[in-house]
Amino acid sequence: MSIKTPIVILNFKTYLESSGENALKLANALESVALESGINMAAAPQSADIYRICQETDIPVLAQHIDPITPGGHTGSNLLECLQESGINGTLLNHSEQRMKLADIDEIIKATQKNNLFSVVCTNNIETSVAAATLNPQFVAVEPPELIGSGIPVSQAEPEIVEGTVAKVKKVNKKTKVLCGAGISTGDDVKAALDLGSVGVLLASGIILADNPKEALLDLVSKI
Amino acid sequence: MSIKTPIVILNFKTYLESSGENALKLANALESVALESGINMAAAPQSADIYRICQETDIPVLAQHIDPITPGGHTGSNLLECLQESGINGTLLNHSEQRMKLADIDEIIKATQKNNLFSVVCTNNIETSVAAATLNPQFVAVEPPELIGSGIPVSQAEPEIVEGTVAKVKKVNKKTKVLCGAGISTGDDVKAALDLGSVGVLLASGIILADNPKEALLDLVSKI
Amino acid sequence: MSIKTPIVILNFKTYLESSGENALKLANALESVALESGINMAAAPQSADIYRICQETDIPVLAQHIDPITPGGHTGSNLLECLQESGINGTLLNHSEQRMKLADIDEIIKATQKNNLFSVVCTNNIETSVAAATLNPQFVAVEPPELIGSGIPVSQAEPEIVEGTVAKVKKVNKKTKVLCGAGISTGDDVKAALDLGSVGVLLASGIILADNPKEALLDLVSKI
Amino acid sequence: MSIKTPIVILNFKTYLESSGENALKLANALESVALESGINMAAAPQSADIYRICQETDIPVLAQHIDPITPGGHTGSNLLECLQESGINGTLLNHSEQRMKLADIDEIIKATQKNNLFSVVCTNNIETSVAAATLNPQFVAVEPPELIGSGIPVSQAEPEIVEGTVAKVKKVNKKTKVLCGAGISTGDDVKAALDLGSVGVLLASGIILADNPKEALLDLVSKI
Repeated sequence: MSIKTPIVILNFKTYLESSGENALKLANALESVALESGINMAAAPQSADIYRICQETDIPVLAQHIDPITPGGHTGSNLLECLQESGINGTLLNHSEQRMKLADIDEIIKATQKNNLFSVVCTNNIETSVAAATLNPQFVAVEPPELIGSGIPVSQAEPEIVEGTVAKVKKVNKKTKVLCGAGISTGDDVKAALDLGSVGVLLASGIILADNPKEALLDLVSKI
Repeated sequence: MSIKTPIVILNFKTYLESSGENALKLANALESVALESGINMAAAPQSADIYRICQETDIPVLAQHIDPITPGGHTGSNLLECLQESGINGTLLNHSEQRMKLADIDEIIKATQKNNLFSVVCTNNIETSVAAATLNPQFVAVEPPELIGSGIPVSQAEPEIVEGTVAKVKKVNKKTKVLCGAGISTGDDVKAALDLGSVGVLLASGIILADNPKEALLDLVSKI
Repeated sequence: MSIKTPIVILNFKTYLESSGENALKLANALESVALESGINMAAAPQSADIYRICQETDIPVLAQHIDPITPGGHTGSNLLECLQESGINGTLLNHSEQRMKLADIDEIIKATQKNNLFSVVCTNNIETSVAAATLNPQFVAVEPPELIGSGIPVSQAEPEIVEGTVAKVKKVNKKTKVLCGAGISTGDDVKAALDLGSVGVLLASGIILADNPKEALLDLVSKI
Repeated sequence: MSIKTPIVILNFKTYLESSGENALKLANALESVALESGINMAAAPQSADIYRICQETDIPVLAQHIDPITPGGHTGSNLLECLQESGINGTLLNHSEQRMKLADIDEIIKATQKNNLFSVVCTNNIETSVAAATLNPQFVAVEPPELIGSGIPVSQAEPEIVEGTVAKVKKVNKKTKVLCGAGISTGDDVKAALDLGSVGVLLASGIILADNPKEALLDLVSKI
């Protein structure tokens, strides 16, 4: 599938502020800012909240993780087919809080391709971004772990990581685009990220825990 | 919370036959058989299907697994609070397809108690059933792994495991009741299970993959 | 097998100060203090150091962990039979840095019994100590995780945990004895631990990183 | 470090036939065949057997796995520094029986480079071989999982996987060489593997469980 860029993906993680009713409010805020700004805004809620958000909004919805299983006996796992029937358009993979085995990343990327879902593989540095890109996901989202949740934006603190990822990923796979994450929370951070060659951002606590998430989202897209 | 017994718990696992729309149909079948028979019938669907099933039926709903986390940054995990807001009344824990660490079983049982949810700890033999029972869940569900999905009912093939579990669990914790699983699919299997002192059954593929799940459920409760 | 108590078990963990030649020196210090004091001193070195330490000392040697496997294709795992041929007399299990699934703890305890090895199951509180004790290991070693490596001895900071574990373990299994760990580094800590009903201690960094480990060990046993 | 090719690497796994004294015999057989044939023969024994084999033979020795840790508190893990002091020259990584997270493969390859060890990353298909090769290990060893332990040699049953891996790895990294594994047990299998562009083989049960491992090894190198 083709995904409009620039894109802002909000990882809801497992905060109370982004669970259940709060998840729905956050998704509504994303939708409303997407309409106002024209920027593509996607939500990555918990599995239990996917169905409702897909029913009540029109934004792209991603799973936070898909397990490397096929239908059958896998109690407690996240099955691609079930998540897709709930309405997802794509998935995060290999988030720093849910790192995956290399063989499993490959398996799930192939399954997303077969099912017309898009995939965002999170990575921790230039080297793993390049490795992931050879597996042909739509996006890699480079996030230096030490900056996640830090409030220090990777696009400003370590621009060479974003630039380096963009340059080296392009060499192995022109179709995989680069997002950046970790510490992103303002419009300036996003502008810096796009100026470095990324096509969007992946963010979480900076918006989820903001006093007014909708205002934070409006600020986020104000410089694009 | 108090749970009416005998109880039949259907673990939906991750079959296509128990995902999405099919999950809803299966939950409706459970509800309808519960109403007709007066037997307590509970569903344990995938996380993504919990909300819909809780909205559209009145049967008890369990999560298949809860991760040992508190609210925060845990991308891709199953948060108790989010599942509870989706409507669960309890949870399976430590299923043979999702074995848990001892310390995590203890942590999640305590969290379910605090949140007025009931817990069903799956176990593989008498010894682990007793160990789990000391942690004070509402139920242990003993399932010899070699019989899971085999069509050979534990209550008839290895009655001494069910009887032994009932007897030895009672010695360490009178409040924890015993369910049995593995290979259960007929009314005779269930009757044998109850005669051995268990208060219900945990089952899956025998019903999920039946030509007519509702009829299979009706047969299941016909001898109680 | 029977193990002389009181016992001091030193978990070598994976410090450089307790690897290779340093591991051998530390084992020699344990042996020499055991001879001088008459107290039973055991070493739990890394797998790669077990053979040498067993060859060059006469103290009891424990593995730090055994994987729940039987001989065969399990690349990179710790096989009981291989460790036993290297000379171990027993093993730690379920250390806070290597927590195990309930079913695996049961499996490995049974394997140690069959092979005449002794087992020390590490636990994090009274409840998991009782659960582990029902599985019939020689020892449970209760270690509140927040005190591990803290320098604050459990025997003095949280005596009720040691006393409570001793009392409640005795109710479910008279044969399983209680050790205590976390923050133990002095003779007073050890004395307090024994006065509370434990039969020994499990310790690590307080000795491994001491300026003079042998002196630290001598102090440790000075009040017994 | 530079490694002479063609190379035969024997993964000892965790068989009784390759543990303890038997591991030493097998390593002696490797050494003797290496001397007779002039072919480079390496052993990958269990951690507990590394020290002895390094002391008593002169062949290259690999760990079966290294954990992504630095020195400190990691009870039960395999520390690079400890294994290196025991004598290893390199390590297997990401074996199908010990799959690793992408970020951890990257971390350990970098650690091996810093410590002058060589690394062999096992992979399951062409795509993951290419991804692994971008991380710059000395070798990738491609092993289709369905052929492992099957007795059906990858070099003859699926030559296109070996050829494809050699061709595509070369495009992303000229320095990483390709080994092949899975089902290799005879001299013809090895010859086929080398003819397809690989520089050696990784094998296990075909030799370990042979009636006469030394003869099996002599046959193995007879067509090179």
